Amino acid sequence: MLNKIKSPKDLKKIEVKNLPSLCDEIRQALITKISIQGGHLAPNLGIVELTTAIHYVYNAPVDKIVFDVSHQTYVHKMLTGRAKAFTDTKHYHDVNGFSNPAESPYDLFTLGHTSTALSLACGLAKARDLQKQQHHIVTVIGDGSLSGGQAYEALNNIVEQGGNIVVIVNDNAMSIAENHGGYYQNLAKLRATNGTSQDNFFRALGLNYVYEPNGNDVQALLKTLQKVKDCTTPTVVHVHTTKGYGYEPAVTNPEIFHYTAPFEVATGTHKADNHADNYIEITYEYLRRNMTKDTKLVAITAATPRAIGFSTERRAQANKQFVDVGIAEEHAVAFAAGLAKGGAHPVFGVQGSFLQRSFDQLHQDLALDNNPATLLVIGDNVHGMGGSTHNGFYDIVQLGNIPNLLYLAPISKQNYLQMLDWSIKQTQYSVAIRVPDAVIDDPLPLTKQFTPDARVVVAGEEVAIIAVGSTFPLAQKVVTALQKQNFHPTLIDPVCVSRIDEKLLSKIAKKHRLVITLEEGALAGGFGQRVAAYYGDQNIKVHNFGFSVGLTQDFEPEAFLKQNGMTVANITKYVLNALK
Amino acid sequence: MLNKIKSPKDLKKIEVKNLPSLCDEIRQALITKISIQGGHLAPNLGIVELTTAIHYVYNAPVDKIVFDVSHQTYVHKMLTGRAKAFTDTKHYHDVNGFSNPAESPYDLFTLGHTSTALSLACGLAKARDLQKQQHHIVTVIGDGSLSGGQAYEALNNIVEQGGNIVVIVNDNAMSIAENHGGYYQNLAKLRATNGTSQDNFFRALGLNYVYEPNGNDVQALLKTLQKVKDCTTPTVVHVHTTKGYGYEPAVTNPEIFHYTAPFEVATGTHKADNHADNYIEITYEYLRRNMTKDTKLVAITAATPRAIGFSTERRAQANKQFVDVGIAEEHAVAFAAGLAKGGAHPVFGVQGSFLQRSFDQLHQDLALDNNPATLLVIGDNVHGMGGSTHNGFYDIVQLGNIPNLLYLAPISKQNYLQMLDWSIKQTQYSVAIRVPDAVIDDPLPLTKQFTPDARVVVAGEEVAIIAVGSTFPLAQKVVTALQKQNFHPTLIDPVCVSRIDEKLLSKIAKKHRLVITLEEGALAGGFGQRVAAYYGDQNIKVHNFGFSVGLTQDFEPEAFLKQNGMTVANITKYVLNALK
Repeated sequence: MLNKIKSPKDLKKIEVKNLPSLCDEIRQALITKISIQGGHLAPNLGIVELTTAIHYVYNAPVDKIVFDVSHQTYVHKMLTGRAKAFTDTKHYHDVNGFSNPAESPYDLFTLGHTSTALSLACGLAKARDLQKQQHHIVTVIGDGSLSGGQAYEALNNIVEQGGNIVVIVNDNAMSIAENHGGYYQNLAKLRATNGTSQDNFFRALGLNYVYEPNGNDVQALLKTLQKVKDCTTPTVVHVHTTKGYGYEPAVTNPEIFHYTAPFEVATGTHKADNHADNYIEITYEYLRRNMTKDTKLVAITAATPRAIGFSTERRAQANKQFVDVGIAEEHAVAFAAGLAKGGAHPVFGVQGSFLQRSFDQLHQDLALDNNPATLLVIGDNVHGMGGSTHNGFYDIVQLGNIPNLLYLAPISKQNYLQMLDWSIKQTQYSVAIRVPDAVIDDPLPLTKQFTPDARVVVAGEEVAIIAVGSTFPLAQKVVTALQKQNFHPTLIDPVCVSRIDEKLLSKIAKKHRLVITLEEGALAGGFGQRVAAYYGDQNIKVHNFGFSVGLTQDFEPEAFLKQNGMTVANITKYVLNALK
Repeated sequence: MLNKIKSPKDLKKIEVKNLPSLCDEIRQALITKISIQGGHLAPNLGIVELTTAIHYVYNAPVDKIVFDVSHQTYVHKMLTGRAKAFTDTKHYHDVNGFSNPAESPYDLFTLGHTSTALSLACGLAKARDLQKQQHHIVTVIGDGSLSGGQAYEALNNIVEQGGNIVVIVNDNAMSIAENHGGYYQNLAKLRATNGTSQDNFFRALGLNYVYEPNGNDVQALLKTLQKVKDCTTPTVVHVHTTKGYGYEPAVTNPEIFHYTAPFEVATGTHKADNHADNYIEITYEYLRRNMTKDTKLVAITAATPRAIGFSTERRAQANKQFVDVGIAEEHAVAFAAGLAKGGAHPVFGVQGSFLQRSFDQLHQDLALDNNPATLLVIGDNVHGMGGSTHNGFYDIVQLGNIPNLLYLAPISKQNYLQMLDWSIKQTQYSVAIRVPDAVIDDPLPLTKQFTPDARVVVAGEEVAIIAVGSTFPLAQKVVTALQKQNFHPTLIDPVCVSRIDEKLLSKIAKKHRLVITLEEGALAGGFGQRVAAYYGDQNIKVHNFGFSVGLTQDFEPEAFLKQNGMTVANITKYVLNALK
């Protein structure tokens, strides 16, 4: 049936009684494709019936459907003309893993961060009402995403705005890991009472509320959605689904199968991980070891505990010294500031892309008072989470330009551990550390005491290369290439990217006529431009290498580096030309 | 009595029956000082009794008190050793208007933005528990601030964390203007039912809940606080206060007296405003005129409607074409994106300092899909809201480095109106406009069609000055000064600060050997550094003028400009030296 569905119109030709078979077909396609290619398995398995029911009841694209975070839109894609991308291996790459207006008019927004759909839908509803249009608005948000403050802001406004809008809360009782916070206790109570509990978060905010316990029963969902579709005041449909539904390994282990690498379908096993050494384990090991010695050390996550190595067992072991605040990056930063002020030693590990939520809190709550918390900024390099919605290329823009905040970019394992250790033990600075991707050894012996000053790794003349963090191996190769051409480049590790080491830069100016900067991040507002500005009125030339091309597109790391001129050949060529 | 209180210990020596007289004394001091100097009057008048009761019951600084946003801490300052700053005109300037650790150990954090106190207090409580300390934690948040998503994130986490923490909700049924959103309907219901309504937002989240209807009765407050002080699970005390209590003009008009300029105490009248022309009125007039023609035009505010000229009457007049989302900047930006996607023409006017909340939404929801909304960024210049917590110096860092977003910096009234009009009518770009401070006329005739390219205002040679928005009058004076020395500087209005006009810059390089950039904003990550980077490996020198000194301190505009070298004399001297 699936391959015959070119649009929701075709879906509606299928008899209701046959929809469960269609759902089976969809589920098989999901399992097969994701087992080969990897992807968000458990969230999509849980929402097969709900997505089918939505498209059966609503009339997209006239009616507007907005899926929050949109990693659960694989089924939506199948039902809106993109089935082949899930049933035909040759077409697997026709679609990306998120809602994507470039793919289809059924996808209204490029989405990837959580908790925004209700605001977007609220805007769509207002635009409809201003234009006196008649279509329906429906938005789907997971229970995990509802811990994000923006979702609450939107609920408040949806109530005040009024009119037709249906908010479907897809409650699978899970975030990526387990849920945290008072709000989740209320969801649990509502599930336990079949939606009848007097304590009701949604009703308290003034929303109509409907509970649907059978979130993986397509026929039950059809009935419920048909009832609420034409509501004239905002209505929440609280749907209880099962994350991973229909694939036993994913139901048993929804955290592992939230986003999964390729796996064996029959057993649900993953290929053994060959990474002998990675920063997740290095970080976890450091924290574990030090937590026993330092009972004031607290690790914090905003719903992505595994990004710093905290599996279920390890979380239990760390006990009160591990806090998952839920999807709540704004709170997380200010919470860390409060902990630091109170004398504790907080370490908040977070993907740089998600930390964008905390720009203001970093300024105001954390750095303005120099509260000595430590942030670990994860994945902000070309090999981190790719794609237009998840690239971590603005962290230096964000963290590198805040007065008082010390943003460190280690180049090696030894360097990283020394910074981390120093940061936790000091009480003068708010510190963020840009956790690199590849684990390499430091080219220099460890200093006794860490200082955030730049380090000269190779002393030379004429040209100096300043290589930020993860670009260091590339810089080393450029140095070698230039040495083969009888040049003697200087190689510098800047260590800190939130200030420039003026003492060293001034010294450099004497024996060099060209400075090259390398950073895996956006050029505009980045580190290199500060160096260029420092030398602006001196007799030394500066050229910045970093990213300006393709920042808003999905990309492959090596191609992206090449596109932005970040290759040994191109950088070497530039230097040779400039020194002519 | 007030002047004898050197610390809360002295307060506790006063008999309970005499506290109302003390409150009267405090209130008189507030009215007198603020009538002379200006300040946050109504919020402080409303909280006199509550603050007195808190310091009577709690044992600060051992017990930790955190006031959200902290513009209501005048009374707290009086009771913690700083009474003179309110009773003695010679000492009026001893304190600033916000919680300030540099002033007193009773002020734990430098605060100014809303909705963060609960997160900070949650962190303090966790730090206490990790260290097995025994003190109490109490935090005070206004009903207005509770619409901010971060406060909701914090409430969720406070519940999960457990332990002793009291959250006092100071409910005066007002934000700066009236409140908006579903949550406020619940507060109103709770007030109307004396706290007994079954729909209860706080209980739904799992908090203990106590209602205190007499929020301006110090003795009633004492009893309530004594009851909850030693709670072992998180407790909300919902206190109903009257904004402006005890001063009739402020009670009658709490929006006007939220933050007030000097006024006449007897009548509550303000000196006539002599500003014949200002951007608030210019903006309002434009919007009003166009709203009737364009029914899809919607003005949006996040609880500061008067920043774009919308008084109570004007809000009523604009009706459905004006939306106050409450303190909810994250939602506001995504809401605007949804409106734009739906075909409406949203204009979100917001103080740049508060827009820092929306860094991620600007990237992801607004600009990634080029949703054609218009943002008006207000007060981001040296004459905007001053102080370490409210300066608007990071807007170019934030908005100028987002791919796809067009950030425009008008230099004149005509320029501004043309940009605004163009922005609302186009459908290709997400646009933000940096609203200037001083209203000046444009030095050039209006172009027929607006384009975001740089404009040469004075064509010259040797030195080119690129002056961003509000720095234009300064640049004009520098040009005049240089002309007197027989130089012929070029003067450029960059128009757009989120890209550099490479065509023009490349042309400039031919006849000039020095480029000066001027911006009222942080240098690091700003516009000037992009210009410096562009010219980095060319034979032209660049020097950036902007702010790097005193960014984290309170300041006076003229002194601050001078401190950062932004004076005619200093810039002229620099140029003359460099061209020698």
